[in-house]
Amino acid sequence: MAQADWRAQLDADVETHVAELLELLHIPSISTDPAHKADVLAAANWVADRLRRAGVPTVKLAEVEGGHPSVIGRWEVSPDQPTLLIYGHYDVQPAEPLELWESPPFEPAIREGRIYARGSSDMKGNLLTAIQGVEAVAKAFGGKPPINVAFIFEGEEEIGSPSFTQIIRENRDLLRADAVISADGGQYGPETPSLTVAFKGLGGCQVNLTTANSDLHSGMYGASVPNAVQAMVQLAATFHDADGRVQVAGFYDKVKDLTAEDRAEIARAEFDEEEFKRDLGLDELWGEAGWTPRERIWGRPTLDLNGIWGGFQGEGTKTVTPNQAHLKITCRLVPDQDPQEIVELIRKHVEAHRPPGATVEVVSARGSAKPYVVDRNNEVYKAAGRVLKELFGVEPVLERAGGTIPATGIFKDELGLETIGFAWSQPGSGAHAPNEWYRLEDFTRGRTGGALLIEELAR
Amino acid sequence: MAQADWRAQLDADVETHVAELLELLHIPSISTDPAHKADVLAAANWVADRLRRAGVPTVKLAEVEGGHPSVIGRWEVSPDQPTLLIYGHYDVQPAEPLELWESPPFEPAIREGRIYARGSSDMKGNLLTAIQGVEAVAKAFGGKPPINVAFIFEGEEEIGSPSFTQIIRENRDLLRADAVISADGGQYGPETPSLTVAFKGLGGCQVNLTTANSDLHSGMYGASVPNAVQAMVQLAATFHDADGRVQVAGFYDKVKDLTAEDRAEIARAEFDEEEFKRDLGLDELWGEAGWTPRERIWGRPTLDLNGIWGGFQGEGTKTVTPNQAHLKITCRLVPDQDPQEIVELIRKHVEAHRPPGATVEVVSARGSAKPYVVDRNNEVYKAAGRVLKELFGVEPVLERAGGTIPATGIFKDELGLETIGFAWSQPGSGAHAPNEWYRLEDFTRGRTGGALLIEELAR
Repeated sequence: MAQADWRAQLDADVETHVAELLELLHIPSISTDPAHKADVLAAANWVADRLRRAGVPTVKLAEVEGGHPSVIGRWEVSPDQPTLLIYGHYDVQPAEPLELWESPPFEPAIREGRIYARGSSDMKGNLLTAIQGVEAVAKAFGGKPPINVAFIFEGEEEIGSPSFTQIIRENRDLLRADAVISADGGQYGPETPSLTVAFKGLGGCQVNLTTANSDLHSGMYGASVPNAVQAMVQLAATFHDADGRVQVAGFYDKVKDLTAEDRAEIARAEFDEEEFKRDLGLDELWGEAGWTPRERIWGRPTLDLNGIWGGFQGEGTKTVTPNQAHLKITCRLVPDQDPQEIVELIRKHVEAHRPPGATVEVVSARGSAKPYVVDRNNEVYKAAGRVLKELFGVEPVLERAGGTIPATGIFKDELGLETIGFAWSQPGSGAHAPNEWYRLEDFTRGRTGGALLIEELAR
Repeated sequence: MAQADWRAQLDADVETHVAELLELLHIPSISTDPAHKADVLAAANWVADRLRRAGVPTVKLAEVEGGHPSVIGRWEVSPDQPTLLIYGHYDVQPAEPLELWESPPFEPAIREGRIYARGSSDMKGNLLTAIQGVEAVAKAFGGKPPINVAFIFEGEEEIGSPSFTQIIRENRDLLRADAVISADGGQYGPETPSLTVAFKGLGGCQVNLTTANSDLHSGMYGASVPNAVQAMVQLAATFHDADGRVQVAGFYDKVKDLTAEDRAEIARAEFDEEEFKRDLGLDELWGEAGWTPRERIWGRPTLDLNGIWGGFQGEGTKTVTPNQAHLKITCRLVPDQDPQEIVELIRKHVEAHRPPGATVEVVSARGSAKPYVVDRNNEVYKAAGRVLKELFGVEPVLERAGGTIPATGIFKDELGLETIGFAWSQPGSGAHAPNEWYRLEDFTRGRTGGALLIEELAR
């Protein structure tokens, strides 16, 4: 039986496979830093080589001029078989602040069953397990997998995937598939599997506010002229009421409220509010009244003030009446909110609440993402659920992501494909923080999970 | 007659005197910039030399370790004569933004009757006219002035006079006087003299607000945790009501409201509200309801938000839930408000309005100044009024400064002396801005005014 074969193969290869991960983690593929451009390319070539070594017959790098390449692969075995597209990224976040790392971020160290390195959890570990799983199954099935498998690993996920849509469009043929699994993500907990059934959307803007034609002396003018910082805080304070509800007219109009069924499903996921607060050093939570913290994070839209600045920010005092202030806003959106429409509503709100004597400008952010909900009738979604149950011995939690993976919307819009999260990282594994880690246990489980899914889809 | 003598002397010296001003303006005595420490010292030595050349017998530099020196001089002629102490400063503001200067800031250029240079209006012109006026009178009176004259020119006015109190304390003997005139200031307009009858006080603080123990991912946490920027704008918006009135409990308790007489006096000063708005590029003014713009600037206390910052301030978007935000506040105060008491009231306000889940901290600013009102019975005040009327041919406007000269409070507290503004700069002469200017006409008038005041006090 094939399964016994690939399980034995994975067991035999475990040391080699871990060594491969350490090798990939040594490459500082920091996409945001031009000084690491050659490292990002080195990581792309490493991944492409690994696909070739796994037996994938078609492997290429695809890039938009000036960007980092995506690694694309396709293992076509039969037009009668379904095709699974595996998505991930090989770029990583910067490692700063370096002084907080217990071992250097690009010199992976194994301590107490965990690999510590930048990119271990997000997501070189998950990326490699996906390739190794397919490879093992292919070997067990006589040199090629029982279904068609395609791969796309981008190098710009950590900088907002600016080239991704164009690369997808230019490589439709190689990416034909029935569904996507995203290896970017993780599980609900060490012993609790989860399936992500929804991702929030994202839209944003910057509000620029100007009063006089220059900064002014607060003694000579301040008592009688509008102050841009004062005007901005008055304006910014209008976005929420005391109960944390967004006050932008129309903001909730298209929101499909969580149903009683949704709320029951969310309540089934374990959540310890006291521990949550303790971990974050908070004595109180905050958010829209009428919903539990978990419901808000998973299923309620937000308007978030990400940054503010204006006037004097140095040491000591400066008696200036500032003439400019700025505010960064992003919104996490749920079905059926549309990011462009929401930014327009914010624009109208800002104009309606323009403080006396101020001029206001709302500049839309470049990127945006529609909210995305997985079709639970999708065959890959159902197969992933069966595999997770087999792996963990319990039914997966149906999780909703408070965050956004722009790729999900791009796969839907460009290729008409559903994306199912299928990945192994743990909560709290420091994805964008110092001392990022990935458990050896999850590495092993990930390889098995990937192989099981291929086999399951072949049935 | 002595007056004819010194007037002839001033006329004869006009070219030399202007050349001296250009020489002093060449020295970039920027007190805030450590790179210019030697230039600040060079300017101090230049001023000390100029006092010696004028005939002042006692001249010294006095400094606190690590600070810039004050130039102190004393011309004692008779214990039976009154003593006038002349105050000013020889340091200047930085010249940035340099690209907005039509001629280099430290290469003084004369165009259409104005000297353009950093420090021309604030206040090397006024400083030099004061010395030249005393010198001319001394020559006319047989080699020494008819009254005792003392001088103190500090080198740290533009950085908040940190050494000034200590220097005053250590040089009380040289600074014994009957009153101070401040050469730092100006006139109401080209043909309108003014006497400054009040200065506002100043107190300030920084508010630091913290929520979680780190910045957080807005998708994974934002909907359910307090956001420091959101919390700060809610807090900062509580300082004023919609009518611009300060909402800090007790803020107005000690305010002596302007009397009907005060308001009538203020109304006599010309003020064109439309021109004021047009000059500043504003379509609307803002401030405490119930008072005219001029009354607010001259006679009403304010709470000014000078700066705010928190979270992401770069290009593009960052989906962060910030955990820190900061706010700079200063208050312009009127009698009998006390700066320390006001900062304590702000502290109580901030604690009472602490947003849910946030911790707040209020850090008092180092410097502060009490509000100061000139005693109109003071002989120097009355003499200055007579001199201004003789110079301009009209009664001086009784002006109240919206700003603060910390030295006024220090002279009052340390030496028990009244300070009367007696200076020549014009409104709008770019004191802290590019293309600062000083009129040759005011330079000439300033020398005459200084000489007239000495003569008037000798009567």
